[in-house]
Amino acid sequence: MRTTVGIVGAGPAGLLLARLLHRAGVDCVVLEALSRAELEGRPRGGVFLEQGAVDALRACGAAGRLDVDGVLHEGFELRFGGRAHRFDVAGRTGGRAPTLYPRHELVKDLIALQLADGAPLLFDARVTALEGLDGERPLVRYSRAGEEHVLECSYVAGCDGADGVARRALLVSGAARLHRRGYPYAWLGVSAGAPPTGDELLLAAHDRGFALQGVRFPEGSRLCLQVPAGTGPDDWSDARVREELEVRLAVAGRPLNPGPLSDRCVVPLRGEVVEPMRHGRLLLAGDAAHVVPPTAAKGTGLALADAVTMARAFAHLRRSGSTALLDRYSEHCLRRVWQAQHFAHTMTTLLHAAPGADAYERRLRASRLDRLVGPTAAAAEFAENYAGLPGDAPFV
Amino acid sequence: MRTTVGIVGAGPAGLLLARLLHRAGVDCVVLEALSRAELEGRPRGGVFLEQGAVDALRACGAAGRLDVDGVLHEGFELRFGGRAHRFDVAGRTGGRAPTLYPRHELVKDLIALQLADGAPLLFDARVTALEGLDGERPLVRYSRAGEEHVLECSYVAGCDGADGVARRALLVSGAARLHRRGYPYAWLGVSAGAPPTGDELLLAAHDRGFALQGVRFPEGSRLCLQVPAGTGPDDWSDARVREELEVRLAVAGRPLNPGPLSDRCVVPLRGEVVEPMRHGRLLLAGDAAHVVPPTAAKGTGLALADAVTMARAFAHLRRSGSTALLDRYSEHCLRRVWQAQHFAHTMTTLLHAAPGADAYERRLRASRLDRLVGPTAAAAEFAENYAGLPGDAPFV
Repeated sequence: MRTTVGIVGAGPAGLLLARLLHRAGVDCVVLEALSRAELEGRPRGGVFLEQGAVDALRACGAAGRLDVDGVLHEGFELRFGGRAHRFDVAGRTGGRAPTLYPRHELVKDLIALQLADGAPLLFDARVTALEGLDGERPLVRYSRAGEEHVLECSYVAGCDGADGVARRALLVSGAARLHRRGYPYAWLGVSAGAPPTGDELLLAAHDRGFALQGVRFPEGSRLCLQVPAGTGPDDWSDARVREELEVRLAVAGRPLNPGPLSDRCVVPLRGEVVEPMRHGRLLLAGDAAHVVPPTAAKGTGLALADAVTMARAFAHLRRSGSTALLDRYSEHCLRRVWQAQHFAHTMTTLLHAAPGADAYERRLRASRLDRLVGPTAAAAEFAENYAGLPGDAPFV
Repeated sequence: MRTTVGIVGAGPAGLLLARLLHRAGVDCVVLEALSRAELEGRPRGGVFLEQGAVDALRACGAAGRLDVDGVLHEGFELRFGGRAHRFDVAGRTGGRAPTLYPRHELVKDLIALQLADGAPLLFDARVTALEGLDGERPLVRYSRAGEEHVLECSYVAGCDGADGVARRALLVSGAARLHRRGYPYAWLGVSAGAPPTGDELLLAAHDRGFALQGVRFPEGSRLCLQVPAGTGPDDWSDARVREELEVRLAVAGRPLNPGPLSDRCVVPLRGEVVEPMRHGRLLLAGDAAHVVPPTAAKGTGLALADAVTMARAFAHLRRSGSTALLDRYSEHCLRRVWQAQHFAHTMTTLLHAAPGADAYERRLRASRLDRLVGPTAAAAEFAENYAGLPGDAPFV
């Protein structure tokens, strides 16, 4: 099999890229290791779609259900020092605010469109090797139904996540470096059977650690607790999880009552950037290129932004024969990526209790939180970053 | 000798406090360990006077020379990554900007006014002990010209700096804690014989470390270099200092040419806060209560703000007999102090090269610098803090 762009991985980045390329008349094939049922059945929480991402999905006809079921996220409640503050995002950005939509629903929407278009999307196709990336016709080797196959491409788009084949191939080439930052804490996530206590996202910067109550979704809502790094999903008893949620999230007269808890998972907090995001004929997008701590929920937004930037570069190549945009792909994406890393880092250290922090550090953090909830430029800076940076929007 | 407020230390905080108390009809005596010549002859660089501080000095008739010789500091030049950017402070704050004025000139002005008023100001008076701070008539013991004296007061204002008797007395009482943050670098300061290359303050966030070129003053200008903590004033040769200044501060076609270098000193970078700033009849102000790293030049501004807040509280006590403002003195000051600690910390980590920083941290810092020089809310937040926070101005 031959194609122009071989896309490894059918997450939001790979699927949006495929749709945009298809519409631009650029040949592509998507290879995905999981089955369709596995892919569509993995609830992985909601995604934040920045205004620019929603615009991009609308522009390629992929926002039909999103426009109905997406929840405009105009603000959130921030609790610290025993008080609750509403943080008005939309009011501080001239109306810009992200939309919340479950990640697997977005994946479902994009898969359905891809298949309806008759565009090649192979499930159960596990990529085993990328070869000839320095040459003009790289090969993607994959196994499917017990047989080995080869996809011959002009370019390979690596959209298969942080642990995928594509990132490994880029790093092994020696042409790129992995920049990495870990945190001494993680998130313990649980699903709550009962609806949340309010309509908006609730973030608590408690002395005992960060906690979060997500917005209502058909399946219920998600709750997250800061736990020490290395904590296993079942290390904390149900009673302890309930008590910590209550202490960190409840206010007087409004008990949490999350109902039955299920679906425990632990999410490590880390920042990672592969630099540059391209070598030879291989370009990375989404988690394959970069990971942000989940605090600022920038992961999916960055992945979709990469896809749009890459699609535009391939469309430009097809129209003009020029690789100018492809050659700037990594530099263009990395500006936005480092900005998001910085914001995610800032928001993470602001909301989490650092183990071993001394009184000076705790007072400094309290002062930062105080300034954030006032009518300050600090609040505007936070809101701009939270909603998505307009100057950086690659979708318009 | 008896008085209402015994003021220990004739720096900007003690002298402004004395002037304000004198004008409000509150008795006070200032005790200063140094001679007048020593005090007035110590050039210790320029001070940043926030708009509110200038207003306060004007309101008590102490801005005569300041209004002539002070330099309005509307912006500075910021260099990093091989490029120079002008940071327009005044343009981002609706015209608010600090005034630069040599610290010892401000001290001279305030001493002259105090003596002209006939208000008690004793030089060469070394305070040896503070006693009875828990009672109603605390005693200040001091030695002068070989004799021991006692000043009996209603209150003691400790304005004698970070290493003075007052802070020690407050900490020894067990009623307060010292919060502290050190940095792994210091500033090596030198005086340059030749005028600076430009009219404005020049800050360089170079990979080899921070460097600064001050504005022109009658005595020349000051230059500072980031050096590792523990570096002695004479550890670096003249040639090495010149080379580092050139590498970090010069741009193509504009060599630095600082002329003869003199007056070397090393300034450690640290943040310190005594909390609370009052115990019994002892109230701290200025460096006695808090130290900020010099990067944001907030030290003198905080000291003057403390003096104004304290003077207002004593005036209120005299008029109404109520200690309400005195009782809120520490809480009122500490809000501003922690805000300044936070800004000084942010500015310090932004401009200095952290020893041992990995590539991730260096990229994050570059991204913060990039955002700062754009038309962003981050730049507005920086400018607001740099010029002095309007909401916090205690002078109006």
